[in-house]
Amino acid sequence: MANDTLQGNRRRQIPRQAGQSAALVDAVEGTLADFLAAQIVALDAGDPALGGLARTARDLVLAGGKRLRPTFAYWGWRGVCDEPVEPVLPALAALELVHTFALVHDDVMDDSATRRGRPTAHRIFAAQHGDSARFGLSAAILVGDLCLVWADQLLARAPAATLLAVRSRYDRMRVEAVAGQFLDILGETEPAQWSPDRALLVARLKTASYTVQRPLQIGLALGGAASPAVDDAYERYGALVGEAFQLRDDLLGVFGDPAVTGKPAGDDLRTAKPTTLLLLARRLATPAQLAELDDADLSRRTEIIADTGAPRRVESMIQERVASAVAVLASAPIADEARAALIELAVRATQRPA
Amino acid sequence: MANDTLQGNRRRQIPRQAGQSAALVDAVEGTLADFLAAQIVALDAGDPALGGLARTARDLVLAGGKRLRPTFAYWGWRGVCDEPVEPVLPALAALELVHTFALVHDDVMDDSATRRGRPTAHRIFAAQHGDSARFGLSAAILVGDLCLVWADQLLARAPAATLLAVRSRYDRMRVEAVAGQFLDILGETEPAQWSPDRALLVARLKTASYTVQRPLQIGLALGGAASPAVDDAYERYGALVGEAFQLRDDLLGVFGDPAVTGKPAGDDLRTAKPTTLLLLARRLATPAQLAELDDADLSRRTEIIADTGAPRRVESMIQERVASAVAVLASAPIADEARAALIELAVRATQRPA
Repeated sequence: MANDTLQGNRRRQIPRQAGQSAALVDAVEGTLADFLAAQIVALDAGDPALGGLARTARDLVLAGGKRLRPTFAYWGWRGVCDEPVEPVLPALAALELVHTFALVHDDVMDDSATRRGRPTAHRIFAAQHGDSARFGLSAAILVGDLCLVWADQLLARAPAATLLAVRSRYDRMRVEAVAGQFLDILGETEPAQWSPDRALLVARLKTASYTVQRPLQIGLALGGAASPAVDDAYERYGALVGEAFQLRDDLLGVFGDPAVTGKPAGDDLRTAKPTTLLLLARRLATPAQLAELDDADLSRRTEIIADTGAPRRVESMIQERVASAVAVLASAPIADEARAALIELAVRATQRPA
Repeated sequence: MANDTLQGNRRRQIPRQAGQSAALVDAVEGTLADFLAAQIVALDAGDPALGGLARTARDLVLAGGKRLRPTFAYWGWRGVCDEPVEPVLPALAALELVHTFALVHDDVMDDSATRRGRPTAHRIFAAQHGDSARFGLSAAILVGDLCLVWADQLLARAPAATLLAVRSRYDRMRVEAVAGQFLDILGETEPAQWSPDRALLVARLKTASYTVQRPLQIGLALGGAASPAVDDAYERYGALVGEAFQLRDDLLGVFGDPAVTGKPAGDDLRTAKPTTLLLLARRLATPAQLAELDDADLSRRTEIIADTGAPRRVESMIQERVASAVAVLASAPIADEARAALIELAVRATQRPA
């Protein structure tokens, strides 16, 4: 009964217009909370330590975040479908479990101490067990693996007739996310071998595909009917918005306000990450600027990068991409409410301060 | 055409009697090789470094191993099904990709240097990139993730009508494998909190479920018809054989011949792994033996453990379990050829020298 009421509330609150995404986030988080509560009970029954593992996983999943992937998937679905949202909520929520998997493993790879203002998974597990970094690392790998398996279980609750099409996008998304992350760490290890083209490929794999294109196309597949025109529009819109999103990340990684981004100032400069911004700055730099760049301290390097004109160039790359994405949507055969929401998402995701 | 011929060869060679498992292993490895070749081509097209990642993954998958999980799944299927094997080969092969995922991540957690006589994934990747341990670790996590996603893609090629039932066993298997591995590393971190019951729970999760029960039940599900009697027989047989398998592992971990096991002598003593054997030895030890145990060197500890009588006790636990497993099969409504093969597997898996 209580559950029925909750479902009823969820249905009434789901946004049908741009700018009402808080209710969607609530519904996705409610689906996640229900699912995770059941997994905790099941694992607790095996051994209390397994219940503890599941509770830590739940806390990581529900620690917040923009829930961008379920949001794009929702609007991808709403673009072609006017049905009640409940049957597709598990599949939308599954994308957030994939994201927890990706974040937890990424944080292990980068040995990051905090995420969303809280300790990262490997730090939490280490703190739980005598500050053992080795245990923290191992448990974090496992909690990431667990989230990926759970994501599959939630995805399996999508309408049966849509599962084949949904899974093919979902599998592609996951391979692209792994491939993008591999190129990302390779770039940090071998920055000399990097090029702006390769930096854009990372953006296409890690951000365009994983965050925008495949979630939109999973949403479309959840709608049940194949529509090559919509699929193509989502593919092109997603590529443009994803690249713009990553370019904004590049700017924030150098010029972002640490109080807003939650990351240290000049984080990308510290890790020597070969982003499009930094590669472009090197290309545009005068010989004198280039000579000074590598040995200067962080704040001087930030100044030099600004002086090369690269940030302005990246700003116009972002604007061009957002404008093109809006143009793609203008001619796409999708519901007007979805079009408006996706335009707002494109602007919001690429003009954000963090 | 070449492919058709290959498939024809595979069909003729698949074993229908116990003791002919080499042909099954060949067929599974052929399926894996074909699948991995296609993934390499696809990733290579994105970036040569991604092709390199995929090639390393392929080498890890095809580096050998007993292919126990596909073998149990095959006989689980053959127990109820007399059809050609081709349609189920991808699902059998998927289990081996899950296993590569598990081994690669386990080796990262244990920081193992070698596996099956070759360098482990994180060592291979580190060696490829200026001996960067950080890059090796990150790339190994990713190659494990990739194998898990690929496993799903192969599994999706199982007969459509069987997928729902197959996936529910498969999801359960993966959660149990993660849970078992979590308890395993927890036991090494907090050996004082361990008990023989907990050690047996790890064996049930990591070995019984993951290696025997779920593969057998996935095989049954691939057969297409629900059979509670067979499901129950596989559940009980798998629990017994899995525990016996793990108990044999415990003995090999202390008394095994390094030249045969490929692991250093007394490996479990070195990592203070709280196995059933070691917990039992502590319980059976005289006060004098117990006092000597913790500070003695490896060879003296091995002697003391033998003197407690624990190894003999573990040997009889193995024999009891194998005998019970054979009795379970005797009354199970499965094909005689599968019964004979599963009896042989039970004996072989628990009497092995490595």
